[in-house]
Amino acid sequence: MSSTIETTSAVQALKERFYDIDALGAASAMMDWDQQCFMPHGAAEARSHHTSILGRMHHEAIVADETGRLIEEAANAVVPESEEAALVRVAKRSYDLATKVPASLVAEKLRLAAIGHEVWVKARKDNDFKAFAPTLEKMIEICRQEAEHLGYEDHIYDALLDQYEEGAKKTDVEAMFGTVRKPLVDLVKDIKADGRDIDNAFLTGDWPEEKQRAFTENIVTAIGFDFERGRQDTAPHPFCTGWSVTDVRLTTRFQPLLNSAVFGSLHEAGHGMYEQGSPLAWDRTPIAGGVSLGIHESQSRFWENIVGRSREFWVCFYPELQKTFPALSGVPLDDFHRAVNKVEPSLIRVEADEVTYNLHILIRFEIECALLEGSLGVHDLPEAWNAKYADYLGVTPPSDALGCMQDVHWSAGLVGYFPTYSMGNLLSYQFLAKMTDEIGDQRALWAKGEFGLTLRWLQENVYSQGKRYTPPDLVQRVTGKPMGADDYLAGITAKYRAIYGM
Amino acid sequence: MSSTIETTSAVQALKERFYDIDALGAASAMMDWDQQCFMPHGAAEARSHHTSILGRMHHEAIVADETGRLIEEAANAVVPESEEAALVRVAKRSYDLATKVPASLVAEKLRLAAIGHEVWVKARKDNDFKAFAPTLEKMIEICRQEAEHLGYEDHIYDALLDQYEEGAKKTDVEAMFGTVRKPLVDLVKDIKADGRDIDNAFLTGDWPEEKQRAFTENIVTAIGFDFERGRQDTAPHPFCTGWSVTDVRLTTRFQPLLNSAVFGSLHEAGHGMYEQGSPLAWDRTPIAGGVSLGIHESQSRFWENIVGRSREFWVCFYPELQKTFPALSGVPLDDFHRAVNKVEPSLIRVEADEVTYNLHILIRFEIECALLEGSLGVHDLPEAWNAKYADYLGVTPPSDALGCMQDVHWSAGLVGYFPTYSMGNLLSYQFLAKMTDEIGDQRALWAKGEFGLTLRWLQENVYSQGKRYTPPDLVQRVTGKPMGADDYLAGITAKYRAIYGM
Repeated sequence: MSSTIETTSAVQALKERFYDIDALGAASAMMDWDQQCFMPHGAAEARSHHTSILGRMHHEAIVADETGRLIEEAANAVVPESEEAALVRVAKRSYDLATKVPASLVAEKLRLAAIGHEVWVKARKDNDFKAFAPTLEKMIEICRQEAEHLGYEDHIYDALLDQYEEGAKKTDVEAMFGTVRKPLVDLVKDIKADGRDIDNAFLTGDWPEEKQRAFTENIVTAIGFDFERGRQDTAPHPFCTGWSVTDVRLTTRFQPLLNSAVFGSLHEAGHGMYEQGSPLAWDRTPIAGGVSLGIHESQSRFWENIVGRSREFWVCFYPELQKTFPALSGVPLDDFHRAVNKVEPSLIRVEADEVTYNLHILIRFEIECALLEGSLGVHDLPEAWNAKYADYLGVTPPSDALGCMQDVHWSAGLVGYFPTYSMGNLLSYQFLAKMTDEIGDQRALWAKGEFGLTLRWLQENVYSQGKRYTPPDLVQRVTGKPMGADDYLAGITAKYRAIYGM
Repeated sequence: MSSTIETTSAVQALKERFYDIDALGAASAMMDWDQQCFMPHGAAEARSHHTSILGRMHHEAIVADETGRLIEEAANAVVPESEEAALVRVAKRSYDLATKVPASLVAEKLRLAAIGHEVWVKARKDNDFKAFAPTLEKMIEICRQEAEHLGYEDHIYDALLDQYEEGAKKTDVEAMFGTVRKPLVDLVKDIKADGRDIDNAFLTGDWPEEKQRAFTENIVTAIGFDFERGRQDTAPHPFCTGWSVTDVRLTTRFQPLLNSAVFGSLHEAGHGMYEQGSPLAWDRTPIAGGVSLGIHESQSRFWENIVGRSREFWVCFYPELQKTFPALSGVPLDDFHRAVNKVEPSLIRVEADEVTYNLHILIRFEIECALLEGSLGVHDLPEAWNAKYADYLGVTPPSDALGCMQDVHWSAGLVGYFPTYSMGNLLSYQFLAKMTDEIGDQRALWAKGEFGLTLRWLQENVYSQGKRYTPPDLVQRVTGKPMGADDYLAGITAKYRAIYGM
C-alpha cells in the first residue's frame, strides 16, 4: 500500500514538473503558429524576443537539477514496463538530450542557425554557394561537436539521427536505401520508357480560395480529423502543430496547382489525427502525442498518398470536386487519378512525387554523412550533389539555388533529419500491409466515404500508444517485424505499374 | 562616468527581469485572445490548465525576492523624474500590488471567482438572486480583506479603486458624480419631454458579415489604426489586447444592429491606437502601453463617441456605408446621425447611450461602496438597485437578471472597477477641449476623412507618454487641470440639445 502511494506521489511530482514544462512549450508553439498564420508583419522583432525568452525558460525548466532529481525519484518508484515507467523513460530522454550538450554550444548553434538562415536565404536568392559555404562549414563542425556530446556507439551520424528518430542508426538507413535504391531507379526508368503519357496540366487553374478551403475541410472531416478539437488555417509553408490532444492546428495553402491544398491538407490532417489520437489521460505529459518524426511522417503519408491518392478516394470525392470546380467537369475520373499520381524526375524535393521522393532523400543522406565524416568537403558539395541527381534521377540542376541550396534544413543545423521522411514513406506501406492482413482490404469502403475502420485500426495500434514505446519497439509490436522496405516496394510497384499501364 | 554605468546596469538588470515577466504575460494574453477568437470548443480544459500555470509563473516571477532586490538597486541608481525613475516606479507598483496580498488570499479569490462565475451564470439564467447572494457576500468579504492588505489612507474603497486607476480616490469619484448626476438626469428628462422623436429601427437588419468586416476595417484604418502592427478578428464579447506596441489585436462582432460592429470597432481601435502609440523603445518594459483603465476608456470613447458619432464623421463615411448596405440608401444622413445618437433610458448598461451611460455607472458605484461599508446588505441589493434605476433613469427592472445581476464584474471580484468607465467618458471631452484650444476645432477635417492631426495631438500628448506619469499627473500635464466634469457636461449638453432640436 505504502509503495503504491510512494509510486503515485513520485510520478505525480514528476508529472507536475512536466506540466510546467509543457505550458512553456505550449506558449512557444502557439506563438510560432500565430506568427505563421496571423501575426502582423511589424511584430516580427517583438515576437523573436518573446519566443527566445520562452524557449530559454523551457530549456531552463528541463535542465534544472530539480527535474533530474524528480526523474530519479520517479524512476526508483515505478513498476518496470508500466505506463508510468514509459513516462519516466521519455522524461529522462528529454532531460538527457537537453543536459548532455553544454549550454554554450546550444547557444552557439542557435546563434549560427539564426544568422545561417539569413545567409542561406540571400545566397539561394543570389545563387551564390560560395557565400553560404563558410556558414555551412561552421554548422557541420558544431553538429560534430554536438554529436560527440550526445554520444554514440557506432557512428557519429547515429547521435544526430537519434534526436529525431529514437533508436535509429546510420546502418538502418543504409540498409533501407540499399534495398530501395535500385528498384526505385528502375521503376522510374521503366515509367519513362514504357509508361503511358500522363497529362496533369488541368490541375493548374484559378481555383477560388474559399472553395478550396471548404472542400479541404470536407475531406479532412470525412477521413476523421476532429474539428471540435482542432482547426485549419492558412500558412505560406503548411505544417501541423498543437498543444493538447484537444487542440491540434492544421495549416494549408491555396495555389494555382490544386494538389497543394488538397494533398497538403490530407498530409497535415494525417499528422493531426495522430496527435488527436493520443490518450486524453496522457495529455500534457511526456508520453502524449506522436513518438518520432518517422512514425509521424508515416501517418501524414498514409492519409495523403495511400488513402488520398487512391482511385477509391476519388470515386467517392471526385463528383464533389467537379461540382466545386466546374473546370474539371470534362476530365474523367481516371485521368484525374493518374494526374495526381504522375511520376516525373525533378529537381525539387518538396514537389517530388511518391516514387522519386525517396531518391531525393537518399542523395541528402549520403551527402550529410560524407560531410560529417569529412570525406566530402563543403566546397565540393555542389559537384557531388549534381552528380548524384544525374545518377539517381537523370536530371541536372541548372543552379545551386535549385540544387544543393534548395532546403532550409542544413542552415538550421538539422543534420540527420532527412532520413525520417523516407522512413515515413516505408512505414506507411508497412502499416497498410499489416492493417490489410488484420481487417482486410479497406479500399472498397474508402470508395463509399467510409474511413472509420481504417482510422480505428491506426488509432488502436499506433495513435493510442503515444510515446509509450520507442519507435523501433512500436513498429515491431504493431507489424511484427522491424522497419523494412518489402511492403513499400511491393505496394508502390504495383500501384505505379497499374497507373502507368505497364 | 562610473555612476552612469551603475545606473545603466541596475536599470538594465531590472528591465531584463521584466522582459521575462512580460514574456509570460504575453503568452497568457495570446492564449486568452486565441480562446476568445479561435480555440476549438474541445480545448477548454487543457487551455484552463495552460493559462493557470502560466499565470502562476507570471505571478511567481513578479513576487520573487530577486525582483524586489532588482527594484531596490535600480531605485538607488536612477535620477529622480527621469524616464528610468518612472520605469522603476511602475515596476515597484506591480511588485507591491502583487506582494501585499498574501498568496493564500489571491488563490482564494481566484477560486471563488471561478466558482462565482458559474454560479452567477446560472443564477442570472434562472433569475434567482438568492442563489447568487451567498457567493457575492463571500466575494465582498474577500475584497474587504484584499483592501486591508493593500492599505489605504481615507476609505477602504480607495484601495480597490487604485488597482484599476492609480491615485484615484472615492472622494474623486463622488465629486465627479456629484457634478454630473443632476445635469444628466435633467438632460434625459428634457429630451423625453421636449426632444424630437428619433427612429433607429432601420439600424437593425440583415447586414452581411463580410461587408461589415470590410467596412469596419476601412474606417478603423482611416482613423489611424495600423494594420501593419495589429489585426481585427471576431469575438463574442469584443475586446482589445496585445503583447507589443507592434502587435495589437482588436476584436469586433457582427450583429443585426449595425451599431455593434461599427461603433464596437471604433471603440476597440481607440484602445488599440493608444497601445500602438506607446514608444517603441519602451516596448515590453513596465512603462509601455496605456496607463490606466480610465485613461484607456477615454481613448476608446473619444474615437467611438466624439469622432465616430459626430455628424462630420458620417459626412465622410455615410456614402460608403450606403453603397455597402443599399438598405440605407433611402435614409438621409441626418436621420442616420440622429439614430446612432438616440438617447433612451434603458435597463442594460452595455446597451446604454452616451448620455445615460454614466447614470448606470453611478448606480453601481453607490451600491458597491455601500456593500463594502456594510451599510447595504447583499440581500437588500435588488431593492436598492431597482430604487436607484427608478430614481435616476425612470425605469424599473422587471427581473434581477435584467437588474442587479446583469454585469459579470462583481462575481469576478472586480469591485472598484466601474467608475473607470465614467472617468473615461469625462476625460474624452476634457482631452477634446484641450485639443480644440491648442489646434482648433478638428471636425471640418473629419468630414474630409482627415484624422491625422487629431491622432497626432493624442499621440504626442497621451499615447507617447505610456505609463511614464501616474493618471492624475498625466491629466494635469496634458489638460492643465485635474479630471473634472465641466468639459464633459458642456460638450454632451450642446451635442444632444442640437441632436434633439432643443
